[in-house]
Amino acid sequence: MMAGGKNSPEIRLSGIGVSEGIRIGKALLYGRQAALPLNDIAASEVEQEVAKLTAARERCLQEVSQLYQQARQLVGDQQAGVIQAQESFLNDPGFCPAMEKLIRTKLFSAAKAADQVINGTAAIFENMPNEYMRERAADIKDIGCRLLAVLAGGKATCLSELREKVILIAADLAPSDTLQLNKQYIQAFVTQKGGKTSHTAIFSKTIGIPAVIGVGDAIAAIADGDTVIVDGTAGLCIVQPSPDTLRSYQAAISRENEGNSVLQNFAGQPAVTVDGYRVEIGANIGTKADAQYALEQGAEGVGLLRTELIYMAADRWPDEEEQLAIYRDIIQAMDNKPVIIRTLDIGGDKALPYLQIPPEANPFLGYRAIRLCLDRQALFGVQLRAILRASAFGAVQIMFPMISCLDEWRQARSLVEEMKDQLRAEGQSFAEDIQVGMMIEVPSAAILARQFAQEVDFFSIGTNDLVQYTLAVDRMNEKVDYLYDHFHPAILALIGQVVQAAHAEGKSVGMCGGMAGDPQAAPLLLALGLDELSMSATAIRKVKFAISRLELESCRNLLADVLQLSTAGEIRMKVEQYLTRKDIR
Amino acid sequence: MMAGGKNSPEIRLSGIGVSEGIRIGKALLYGRQAALPLNDIAASEVEQEVAKLTAARERCLQEVSQLYQQARQLVGDQQAGVIQAQESFLNDPGFCPAMEKLIRTKLFSAAKAADQVINGTAAIFENMPNEYMRERAADIKDIGCRLLAVLAGGKATCLSELREKVILIAADLAPSDTLQLNKQYIQAFVTQKGGKTSHTAIFSKTIGIPAVIGVGDAIAAIADGDTVIVDGTAGLCIVQPSPDTLRSYQAAISRENEGNSVLQNFAGQPAVTVDGYRVEIGANIGTKADAQYALEQGAEGVGLLRTELIYMAADRWPDEEEQLAIYRDIIQAMDNKPVIIRTLDIGGDKALPYLQIPPEANPFLGYRAIRLCLDRQALFGVQLRAILRASAFGAVQIMFPMISCLDEWRQARSLVEEMKDQLRAEGQSFAEDIQVGMMIEVPSAAILARQFAQEVDFFSIGTNDLVQYTLAVDRMNEKVDYLYDHFHPAILALIGQVVQAAHAEGKSVGMCGGMAGDPQAAPLLLALGLDELSMSATAIRKVKFAISRLELESCRNLLADVLQLSTAGEIRMKVEQYLTRKDIR
Repeated sequence: MMAGGKNSPEIRLSGIGVSEGIRIGKALLYGRQAALPLNDIAASEVEQEVAKLTAARERCLQEVSQLYQQARQLVGDQQAGVIQAQESFLNDPGFCPAMEKLIRTKLFSAAKAADQVINGTAAIFENMPNEYMRERAADIKDIGCRLLAVLAGGKATCLSELREKVILIAADLAPSDTLQLNKQYIQAFVTQKGGKTSHTAIFSKTIGIPAVIGVGDAIAAIADGDTVIVDGTAGLCIVQPSPDTLRSYQAAISRENEGNSVLQNFAGQPAVTVDGYRVEIGANIGTKADAQYALEQGAEGVGLLRTELIYMAADRWPDEEEQLAIYRDIIQAMDNKPVIIRTLDIGGDKALPYLQIPPEANPFLGYRAIRLCLDRQALFGVQLRAILRASAFGAVQIMFPMISCLDEWRQARSLVEEMKDQLRAEGQSFAEDIQVGMMIEVPSAAILARQFAQEVDFFSIGTNDLVQYTLAVDRMNEKVDYLYDHFHPAILALIGQVVQAAHAEGKSVGMCGGMAGDPQAAPLLLALGLDELSMSATAIRKVKFAISRLELESCRNLLADVLQLSTAGEIRMKVEQYLTRKDIR
Repeated sequence: MMAGGKNSPEIRLSGIGVSEGIRIGKALLYGRQAALPLNDIAASEVEQEVAKLTAARERCLQEVSQLYQQARQLVGDQQAGVIQAQESFLNDPGFCPAMEKLIRTKLFSAAKAADQVINGTAAIFENMPNEYMRERAADIKDIGCRLLAVLAGGKATCLSELREKVILIAADLAPSDTLQLNKQYIQAFVTQKGGKTSHTAIFSKTIGIPAVIGVGDAIAAIADGDTVIVDGTAGLCIVQPSPDTLRSYQAAISRENEGNSVLQNFAGQPAVTVDGYRVEIGANIGTKADAQYALEQGAEGVGLLRTELIYMAADRWPDEEEQLAIYRDIIQAMDNKPVIIRTLDIGGDKALPYLQIPPEANPFLGYRAIRLCLDRQALFGVQLRAILRASAFGAVQIMFPMISCLDEWRQARSLVEEMKDQLRAEGQSFAEDIQVGMMIEVPSAAILARQFAQEVDFFSIGTNDLVQYTLAVDRMNEKVDYLYDHFHPAILALIGQVVQAAHAEGKSVGMCGGMAGDPQAAPLLLALGLDELSMSATAIRKVKFAISRLELESCRNLLADVLQLSTAGEIRMKVEQYLTRKDIR
């Protein structure tokens, strides 16, 4: 591997790190050339150009369909859905027919017509005030590039044909690019554009390839074949590193690998402190494939089954039998371990194509989750019936999201009883003693935990939303995400209140937000008394390892000290000092 | 007045009540007829049509300018700004020039060209996912109607020429319609369209005319000349009421009038309970005119001066001298009474034309208020200097909005010291001992009140945002506003915590959100121990009256009972029972 000499000092590009890990490799500049002549044609050529367009569209539909099959195997039904968005553009009456019209009326070549419609449509999406809609422009450009490539008589550059390891450098990666990535040869990637909610970000996390995205125009500093270090944890990309930098990162990679092999042992172990205090470790999952992976990583149950994925993958409201089949598959995959099924948490940043919700000024403070379900009880009833029937096959619990007041809880709870009555009358089997609980993610629910604790079977604290509302910070918003911190003393105070309230009534309390999967938070969470921590499967071994090195009594002392502090920064520093002292990390 | 006979049973239309009060009157159906022929023209007529368009544009610019002058006198600079939006469309290169192009290239008549451009532009705004942008479509249609009316050789129907009292029935009221309303002849209005943030809603509150908006297509049930009851408090409109209904509403109007004359006496009185406990009553204001009105209504100071209005009225960042002059005017208008100046609270639902903030997915959880100010310290420093210099002219206090963590408070607080140092060095005078406080409106600030209380001079609780964040409810969102309630037990708990924390450190705590102006909330707020209640000027007499009938000790017993309850509904009922028992209302 070549390091930069004296004449080419190393360059550091910073961006958003969206998938952890460090990689060192050779840069491959990836981009499609618009080598097509975008010319006008003679009137006599119209039919020929229309035929070209029609053939190109057919070819693209085939390619997209193949890609969809590949994608399903690689990343599951859920994420593969973005490929379907491309198919829908190919079938949209405003897309190819508009191109045909330009060929016929303006005498544009097929390529010129396609280019105009693609850019025009993408521009409309790019200018929408909603980030999600803006990101959709990437889908249009992606299918557009494919169409143009086919019109040029070729095929989109096929990343899957790579035969040597590279670090991919691109303006932006389209959904179909990321799907073609072969983990074996792609070590990492760096992009000029992309936000936290872009496809690139989501895919890099799902596939587990380190990435630094959104480095901006500085990306031009990278030449094909340059040696590049990608630090996905720090969001840093170093071009032509100095020999010193290279050595230090090589050492970091070795430590990372050692760490991984140490962690490997912890998958099969329980999470027990040095002094024998045990916490249950669950996984947050959405699909049967997730369930299998979670078991491998050492999950002792499912602390959060996100049912919205089942609804998002469908093109209409899934019926009772369909839902039952999916829940049963997951329960059986989890091998009789407990599974907490969260009822539909749609709305906010999660949309359903077949659910028409008018755009909202502040969707996170809007019509979502339990609010939507209580407003559409017929649909909600179907889900509750399916979950209840699934409870005949394993240790299922029901959990309601976004409860903000007791009226909502009582309404939802009594709907469960109503569905039980129905099923009983129909002679359907279900677990009569099924546990019903709620998420604590709205500040008012945390503040009223004492009252809720008298009525629920269990709580699960969803820290992502709880932090978001308590600090009034949308963590997806890059202008203010610096304020988002689960070590904020107000958050610790609320968690403490909730645990005390639950335990006073003999109820259990878990946590299923991002904080539960943060090994640094473990000493505080243990001391706060949480009974269960549920996290993404990739975090399980790290957290189990972190807990194995802690001592409960000492964590309690740490917590007492921390509760005297008044800023998140002070608390974070205190915890870091503590963990260093204990020789952890 | 005619009541409906047996053959025409009364019809009840419900909508959104946006301005309190009951009125009974005769319906006037108001709407513009599109009587213009929207035809094509011969090529020889092009120059003539372009000339017509140019003349019509000139005429509209004149009318709009006159209207702007009227509006400033009627409703102040702030609201008159919407008229300027119309002027900006008339000057927009995409507006009239686009019409001219259609005349020249497509041989459209001026009217047809104008109609197409107006509808096209309005459609773009109407389809935007952001409510504020959608409402802007009304501005375009408004100026469009004016332009079409002038092209038709007439003048927009002039509501100011009315000479009898009517209840105005319309599809929607355009900003210029509401500005022409003469309160003397317009008793109330009812519209088919309009949301809580529409111009119609804002104007009806500002001018104090009762209104029921958004009644939908059912508005067709009202015929010209029908007897109509408008209940702006309940959001109800009754068409051709039965004799019984009519009698009961006439009685309600009498009670309303009696109530108003009783209240009249309370403007000049302090707010003192039967047992002699006194609370300070302040006003929430934005302008010098507001200050004068607030004094008339009995304000003992300004609990909240919203400085964003000063920024919103300008077309660029106002400089230090401009701001100083405005602050000094207001302070002097307030006659040496204390004035709490809140620093710029822009962002969220309040935009500045000259401040480019990229659209946000959830602006209420985004880049706003103190977050924006700490990010743009050069601009923030100018405001702090202006406020400090204004403190030489009266009892000024500084208050920061949206503080969510101690770091923000400390940064803002030290910036005040920095500006003091600057002013001292320059020999400028200011109050050395100026009090600096913060709003409690983010849940984390309420939860950490104990820590904040050690560092601030005072708190003021902003209930609107505090409720919004604590319950995760955007109260502007009609799908979920049923959840918004300041009687929610979690809100009472937070207020209690904040007051205790402040008093433990000997600091004062006021309230400047909507709850402070709710007479029903008064017994709880007194018992909770708030030192000052600041409200819109129209609420002052009602709240003073309510307080005059309360006894502090009994309010404390009520609070103790209320704190045992677990839902907002139960609390509201308990308070209502209490107030009825005390013969209040």
